[in-house]
Amino acid sequence: MKALVLLSGGLDSCVTLAYAVNKYGSENVAALSTLYGQKHAKELVCAQDIAKYYNVRFIAEDISNVMQYAKNVSSLMSGSEVSFNDKSYADQIKEDGSPSTEVPFRNGIFLSIAASIAMSIFPKEDVEVMYGAHSDDAAGNAYPDCSPEFADTMDKAIQIASRGKVKLVRPLINFTKSRVVKEGVVLGAPFELTWSCYHGGKKACGVCGTCRDRIDAFRANDLIDPIEYEGENPFADLRR
Amino acid sequence: MKALVLLSGGLDSCVTLAYAVNKYGSENVAALSTLYGQKHAKELVCAQDIAKYYNVRFIAEDISNVMQYAKNVSSLMSGSEVSFNDKSYADQIKEDGSPSTEVPFRNGIFLSIAASIAMSIFPKEDVEVMYGAHSDDAAGNAYPDCSPEFADTMDKAIQIASRGKVKLVRPLINFTKSRVVKEGVVLGAPFELTWSCYHGGKKACGVCGTCRDRIDAFRANDLIDPIEYEGENPFADLRR
Repeated sequence: MKALVLLSGGLDSCVTLAYAVNKYGSENVAALSTLYGQKHAKELVCAQDIAKYYNVRFIAEDISNVMQYAKNVSSLMSGSEVSFNDKSYADQIKEDGSPSTEVPFRNGIFLSIAASIAMSIFPKEDVEVMYGAHSDDAAGNAYPDCSPEFADTMDKAIQIASRGKVKLVRPLINFTKSRVVKEGVVLGAPFELTWSCYHGGKKACGVCGTCRDRIDAFRANDLIDPIEYEGENPFADLRR
Repeated sequence: MKALVLLSGGLDSCVTLAYAVNKYGSENVAALSTLYGQKHAKELVCAQDIAKYYNVRFIAEDISNVMQYAKNVSSLMSGSEVSFNDKSYADQIKEDGSPSTEVPFRNGIFLSIAASIAMSIFPKEDVEVMYGAHSDDAAGNAYPDCSPEFADTMDKAIQIASRGKVKLVRPLINFTKSRVVKEGVVLGAPFELTWSCYHGGKKACGVCGTCRDRIDAFRANDLIDPIEYEGENPFADLRR
């Protein structure tokens, strides 16, 4: 069995890669990252560092050309004039009811590219395309392309097109975010190499929705996040 | 209603665009073409000419970076060492039983990109993503990502992710290739601007599988194909 892991450089995808390497060995795992026109490319640098840490083949491709039209509707895109604030991701609601942080069919494009590359680089073996969706990802409710129904449908499409050779696997899907952190600890995931903050600063802001989710997940495990935060240390009371 | 038509520059996609413009008007239609590393880019020039003919917005994007890995398995890709001959497309069978002309998950990537762009450029309207699959396309049996089951599954994924705003439409799906030609005649499609030949020569070769399918489809209608062919004119007996 081979595995191709979607690696964003964030915490969830890092734990997913840790899981894949633990299960199949680094020689049977590859990681895929995309530059799609997100506002900063810091995550991609983190993804590269994490892939290097695990000694897996790292594939990075720029798809910002096909995603450029999303500037029109999504605050996540570089050059977009759609507004964004520091509420949680799912609370950035536009007039039509969709979150401004939604990038149209982004996950569909990611999974399609991953399926194609999985079939191309591992032509003779079965492949699991893995990604780090988890159970209390708010995205699941707010973004239809993060829903279980969407994942199941894309899985079906990929299995049809690959004659059953490639399937989608979401190893963390039954885990809460804090359980993902715990799993990462067990697997020895290099949290210090990951980046979650919406902003591309030198340190994580500690204020945006993704920072707060991450901080809460570490705190729920009585753990100190090894990355640095701007301003007051959110783990100051845990440092002994 | 808006329409985004996948326009390869071939005959089927040209008739699909003709259908969309006839139904919704050119101001409500856009055309999408991709350069994906196919062996020649002549089709893309034809696509541009056809879009210009119909005065529709033309979007062309290069996705050859994400498709480059397919060289490993597909004879259709520029730089591939997988062999190709002038049998029909579906008869280029590799050791593992798949045709060498298969480009892994190509249609999945095309449809995903089209769904994303449709949602981005027409944010306030419902959109039909149209493409020119037809009933006696040999591809339907040989390539799983050309099967009706695959199309239905991708349609479902796109409807989920777009909250029902975008759906896939295959207006020619019940037509044979010769019926597609007939429909094109009724709609006044500019066949002279299309390109079907596998080879990127100045004139169509008249010998490869796609040329032969095209010639047969015109002949079945007692029609002369307006494009030029190398060597003996396959319609010589019809010229009066």
